[in-house]
Amino acid sequence: MTKKQFKKVLLAYSGGLDTSVIIPWLKENYGDCEVIGMTGNVGQEEDWAAVEEKAHNSGASKLYIEDLRQEFIEDYIFPAMQAGAKYEGTYLLGTAYARPLIAKRMVEIAHQEGCDAIAHGCTGKGNDQVRFELGIREFDPSMPIIAPWREWDLKSREDEFKYAEAHNIPLPITRETNYSKDENLWHLSHEGLDLEDPSKQPSYEKILELGVSPKQAPDESAYVTIDFEQGIPVALDGQKLSALELVESLNELGGKYGIGILDIVENRLVGMKSRGVYETPGGTILYHAHQKLEQIVLDRDTMHYKQQVALKYAELVYNGLWFSPLRQALQAFVDQTQVNMTGQVKLELYKGNIIDAGVTSPYSLYSEELATFDEDDIYAQDDAEGFIKLFGLPQSARAMKEQTWKGQK
Amino acid sequence: MTKKQFKKVLLAYSGGLDTSVIIPWLKENYGDCEVIGMTGNVGQEEDWAAVEEKAHNSGASKLYIEDLRQEFIEDYIFPAMQAGAKYEGTYLLGTAYARPLIAKRMVEIAHQEGCDAIAHGCTGKGNDQVRFELGIREFDPSMPIIAPWREWDLKSREDEFKYAEAHNIPLPITRETNYSKDENLWHLSHEGLDLEDPSKQPSYEKILELGVSPKQAPDESAYVTIDFEQGIPVALDGQKLSALELVESLNELGGKYGIGILDIVENRLVGMKSRGVYETPGGTILYHAHQKLEQIVLDRDTMHYKQQVALKYAELVYNGLWFSPLRQALQAFVDQTQVNMTGQVKLELYKGNIIDAGVTSPYSLYSEELATFDEDDIYAQDDAEGFIKLFGLPQSARAMKEQTWKGQK
Amino acid sequence: MTKKQFKKVLLAYSGGLDTSVIIPWLKENYGDCEVIGMTGNVGQEEDWAAVEEKAHNSGASKLYIEDLRQEFIEDYIFPAMQAGAKYEGTYLLGTAYARPLIAKRMVEIAHQEGCDAIAHGCTGKGNDQVRFELGIREFDPSMPIIAPWREWDLKSREDEFKYAEAHNIPLPITRETNYSKDENLWHLSHEGLDLEDPSKQPSYEKILELGVSPKQAPDESAYVTIDFEQGIPVALDGQKLSALELVESLNELGGKYGIGILDIVENRLVGMKSRGVYETPGGTILYHAHQKLEQIVLDRDTMHYKQQVALKYAELVYNGLWFSPLRQALQAFVDQTQVNMTGQVKLELYKGNIIDAGVTSPYSLYSEELATFDEDDIYAQDDAEGFIKLFGLPQSARAMKEQTWKGQK
Amino acid sequence: MTKKQFKKVLLAYSGGLDTSVIIPWLKENYGDCEVIGMTGNVGQEEDWAAVEEKAHNSGASKLYIEDLRQEFIEDYIFPAMQAGAKYEGTYLLGTAYARPLIAKRMVEIAHQEGCDAIAHGCTGKGNDQVRFELGIREFDPSMPIIAPWREWDLKSREDEFKYAEAHNIPLPITRETNYSKDENLWHLSHEGLDLEDPSKQPSYEKILELGVSPKQAPDESAYVTIDFEQGIPVALDGQKLSALELVESLNELGGKYGIGILDIVENRLVGMKSRGVYETPGGTILYHAHQKLEQIVLDRDTMHYKQQVALKYAELVYNGLWFSPLRQALQAFVDQTQVNMTGQVKLELYKGNIIDAGVTSPYSLYSEELATFDEDDIYAQDDAEGFIKLFGLPQSARAMKEQTWKGQK
Repeated sequence: MTKKQFKKVLLAYSGGLDTSVIIPWLKENYGDCEVIGMTGNVGQEEDWAAVEEKAHNSGASKLYIEDLRQEFIEDYIFPAMQAGAKYEGTYLLGTAYARPLIAKRMVEIAHQEGCDAIAHGCTGKGNDQVRFELGIREFDPSMPIIAPWREWDLKSREDEFKYAEAHNIPLPITRETNYSKDENLWHLSHEGLDLEDPSKQPSYEKILELGVSPKQAPDESAYVTIDFEQGIPVALDGQKLSALELVESLNELGGKYGIGILDIVENRLVGMKSRGVYETPGGTILYHAHQKLEQIVLDRDTMHYKQQVALKYAELVYNGLWFSPLRQALQAFVDQTQVNMTGQVKLELYKGNIIDAGVTSPYSLYSEELATFDEDDIYAQDDAEGFIKLFGLPQSARAMKEQTWKGQK
Repeated sequence: MTKKQFKKVLLAYSGGLDTSVIIPWLKENYGDCEVIGMTGNVGQEEDWAAVEEKAHNSGASKLYIEDLRQEFIEDYIFPAMQAGAKYEGTYLLGTAYARPLIAKRMVEIAHQEGCDAIAHGCTGKGNDQVRFELGIREFDPSMPIIAPWREWDLKSREDEFKYAEAHNIPLPITRETNYSKDENLWHLSHEGLDLEDPSKQPSYEKILELGVSPKQAPDESAYVTIDFEQGIPVALDGQKLSALELVESLNELGGKYGIGILDIVENRLVGMKSRGVYETPGGTILYHAHQKLEQIVLDRDTMHYKQQVALKYAELVYNGLWFSPLRQALQAFVDQTQVNMTGQVKLELYKGNIIDAGVTSPYSLYSEELATFDEDDIYAQDDAEGFIKLFGLPQSARAMKEQTWKGQK
Repeated sequence: MTKKQFKKVLLAYSGGLDTSVIIPWLKENYGDCEVIGMTGNVGQEEDWAAVEEKAHNSGASKLYIEDLRQEFIEDYIFPAMQAGAKYEGTYLLGTAYARPLIAKRMVEIAHQEGCDAIAHGCTGKGNDQVRFELGIREFDPSMPIIAPWREWDLKSREDEFKYAEAHNIPLPITRETNYSKDENLWHLSHEGLDLEDPSKQPSYEKILELGVSPKQAPDESAYVTIDFEQGIPVALDGQKLSALELVESLNELGGKYGIGILDIVENRLVGMKSRGVYETPGGTILYHAHQKLEQIVLDRDTMHYKQQVALKYAELVYNGLWFSPLRQALQAFVDQTQVNMTGQVKLELYKGNIIDAGVTSPYSLYSEELATFDEDDIYAQDDAEGFIKLFGLPQSARAMKEQTWKGQK
Repeated sequence: MTKKQFKKVLLAYSGGLDTSVIIPWLKENYGDCEVIGMTGNVGQEEDWAAVEEKAHNSGASKLYIEDLRQEFIEDYIFPAMQAGAKYEGTYLLGTAYARPLIAKRMVEIAHQEGCDAIAHGCTGKGNDQVRFELGIREFDPSMPIIAPWREWDLKSREDEFKYAEAHNIPLPITRETNYSKDENLWHLSHEGLDLEDPSKQPSYEKILELGVSPKQAPDESAYVTIDFEQGIPVALDGQKLSALELVESLNELGGKYGIGILDIVENRLVGMKSRGVYETPGGTILYHAHQKLEQIVLDRDTMHYKQQVALKYAELVYNGLWFSPLRQALQAFVDQTQVNMTGQVKLELYKGNIIDAGVTSPYSLYSEELATFDEDDIYAQDDAEGFIKLFGLPQSARAMKEQTWKGQK
């Protein structure tokens, strides 16, 4: 099968082994095309100068390093946190948010640079290929996409190392320790190696990078208060912070106190189950705080329905459908629920535990007068009799009929 | 308004102040009726001989003490745990399970004793009145129900104390410490007093009874393995146990390690928000373990839909609709999902944390071969290209149309 | 029980027997209070001068006749039609929309007039009392509400007639034909009498008022085209019409062709099942047309989720929760889905049938090129292989495991 | 790309052009393999002897003609009808039911015959390929599947005709009238040609085969009564019939009276919208009757939840996931709801209309006593006051708070 020829390919470049190898491979296989790299800075720990140098050494003619951090937090993370989106009840979707954002920026750069294809280094067995490609097609449905992992003959890490050596590509990691990781402002994920056996407990002491395990956390607890305005966290301990500063601060704090470590087997979109360990220290605190505030601000019916919406929302984000009309319509629902989501949540952090330490809101629907078991002026207890009778009428009426059916009494 | 006369009233008797006061009040107000007590042993800590003596001293002609513990766990708790039911995402429904069971048994006793009314001591502002009365009406829709709290002139604890003193009823508790509590095998709830202000952190050191707070837990962790058969926990650390023994053991273990403390503002069925602190040490471990097992045994679609079912299931149980046709139909769904839910979950307990330490099942759908990023024989990576194209076709087709609409390109 | 005294009561007045009798009854029972009437014109057929005269003759000091028709259609009917709300799959909610609107206006008038109570003539067994009272409490939660049907000793129509005769109230209808009806621009409902037996077929020839039965409709069909802009119908047969004119025209047309007759047993909020016959000629056409347009404009995921939203939306409206935060949040979802809902639907009406005769939209997502079974440039048929493999991977992987479990093969 | 060699291929054979052409093509392309045909009789109109002869003339060594009609109705159609499954609110899923059943039988035959591959004639753009292949993989996940339409060079009907002529295959249809049709006991679908333009009204007079359009139906109406036992239709007009006889009778009756014609644009699983005309005369009557019976037998909560379940159930069936664990778990839910679904429904059929003519059930929950607006012994109207107050308490409490927030009053 002869491949298409391309003139200029934009590659989602990470500086890791995979994308480094892809640069010469693209040139070899797509008509000696020019390769431009694009790296999205979504908060991962990097030496950007070194990344740029590596890109050039691997054969890229140019490297865009795009600071997407603010947009990442404000336009992706926070809206989804407001939705309460957790995939399969637990996963805070860290990787899933970054992909559509990067894809969107790539299409802009590709158009600007006149690229005739976009390439990425995602494996053919994961979710990220889907998220990338759906993001790209959203903004340019006819842009050709190259996914070398689905095409080439390199079938393992070992093959990659050999290819890299043969092409004089600097090797970014040693051969031993290569968990598959994804890092951004929101989380750090770990997959592969011994984690692929879910019967084994992970060795957190070795794996964790954003923080420590509960056992390694300090013996003293720490308090933090988070202020929300319309569902957006805006201050820590009374100090106004930008979204970026706030998340970074909570990451540091949460990491120190052993918060937000998750070990799950999840269902990938492409059909198999996979096991991952996720660190989301600040995100876990934020979700907890936001849900605490919702307990006093949201009315019951809205809260219950919003739980359902959160399930679908999380599925859509996980599946790469961030830009879909349905995600946007669900967002409109969520936004409407956040109008009064202003208040303060106080939390105590202690060795992996988030302990509620008080919540207040000017828009609280909690009424101490109504809640108390003592007498009050609003609630007439004998109203309850009528309520129960009619609330239970379908049941009573059925029970009466059933007695007849059974010929009882 | 002249009240009805009754000859023999069956009272749900707890031995506490409320139900002790109710006995003479019923006699005074319903034609000097005979009052029989019924206490359901659902695992609360009690001196049963003392309870019986107190009942007689308060004027009851007889007290049934019914051991409902096994039925409680096997027919109520476990089915709902299999459903994954958590009210408003967190509350494990401890109180809600006990009410229908007790109500059902009361109707049986009332019929056997020839009672012409059933009374209970639930407040007119809570959920339990609904759960009791719906339970009673399920089995005898025409049985009159007396709820003194909705009728009498005693408007506070203070009024009750005075009434008790005037009628020579033994006072079960001192006047100071009277959180409203509900205890059973599954949980212990605390409401009232300073807890009625959700801006204040509860003083766990004073409140907790089933266990300790994370801070007071041991510095060492403990491991436990739980075996499930078709969704039912059957063994701890390899030792087969009855349902009752198993829950009791996990309560002790969880309590010791600071597991399962919950502090929430919830939405009561009768319309107001209320704040409670719940201790569910064993239950929290069981839910965690069961969901862990589900991660490897349930297929994705079933797991995702089951999350929705769990929301509704929890609402129904919370609202006292245990015996409703819908709860039963949802149970049929849940039961079907548990057929393969056999396996072993290992957990590490450490100062309030439940740390996953491995899960296995003969019916695991997890496939290390499929999950690995390395080559495998089943999954052809280039299938992903077709998958993504068609999975994303609605989006691509829309994006193409949108370009036309916008007159772009 | 002594009743409260009121000075000035605002009564929801219809001109029918019930509300006519209520005027003197209020004066007799609430301290000879002044009674003001308020009639909402939501499109029912009335001789307004006669209604006003009757109100005065029955003892009202004043009658507000409020033309709420435009607001009714634009702010209540159309938003719910866009949601696709049908209670229990069929009922177009005609009565349920009018109540909150009237309640809202009543509170405004009550405040303006300095009334100290609001009264309505709804029965204690129906849904409308709930809808009225929730509407009133939304805008004035402390306004006392009087519901004579739940208080007085008149237990039947016969009692009312006697009371009316004793108080010289003009009798509005003869004693024979008294289906309980509710009419507005959107529908006419019929309940009571022989309709209370669901084993009997209604005699449409006698009952129907807004149109004819299919059998009585013309032998020829009629075509109509409806233009929508962002989900709002704006023109019939190419002629721009106001919302009011458009609905009136469709009512006439639909009624003539036997469209929109519904005979159902529904579940009332207050717990019992009831049987009603509904005429919604124009509404039935509009719902059909709108859903037809959605077939080509909405993407699949949004359409499927919107079906779920419609179920909840309908429940909320039926239950009187129009002003609830949840209804508003669902509306935000719906509104977002209607952005592109612009296009034209052509329908053929024939003896009760609505026959699709073509649909077009500038924002259609239908692509003839994609749909055709012949070759096209966009869709590569061999992509389907990869799609099916991965779409079916959870199933294949499970099937393989199952073979192992069964020791087969 | 060299193709695999197979020894013996089992082909899903219909007798139409596509599958006739496939026989020689398989031999040419897969190592001169033996080709066995299998035709599932699911109620389509066929001259079976002619089909068999055609198969042999086209090169098949054997043709299995399997009578699957009873299983089709009893194990596929009726369970889904009980679920109330309609895809996108309208489509009764006729084609979707037949595929998994045929696939299951094919795997049995393939195993029996020692076939090493299964082939089908579904296009690469439709849903049926997915339904077939998922069905096959359920029962033999490693069986190779050949889908010639996704592989060969024949890109249109014209190409097929030429290939057929070149290989001396008898041409089953003339070149002009070739709507793509699918027929079985439940329905007949029409796609393609002028139907691919949804702005055009179909010419029913030309298209319809199972019945007539409403305009061509008799001027007189007909009555039919259907008896259900536990959700299964068992008799027409009082006469017990087998499932097969019953559906055939209703098809004839419905067809005669113009019932069950559907014209929709639907969303295919593989991503595009397509337009089809469906005839489901008997099925439409059965769904209507079943839902009518549910109106009096199901309690409200179950009915409302079941509406949601129906949406998911329909999606699963449409998407070929009949054998999935989720469909089975939903079925368990549905089965539980049908326990009391016994009763009789009377319908009047008139020119496309199904007019309700009465419904009865020994397990009816409808209570005329409760429904009537007159006095009754069960329902105390003043209970409604307490009910409304507490039902509306979240709203009242919020409205009070809102007044404070706004500084009003």
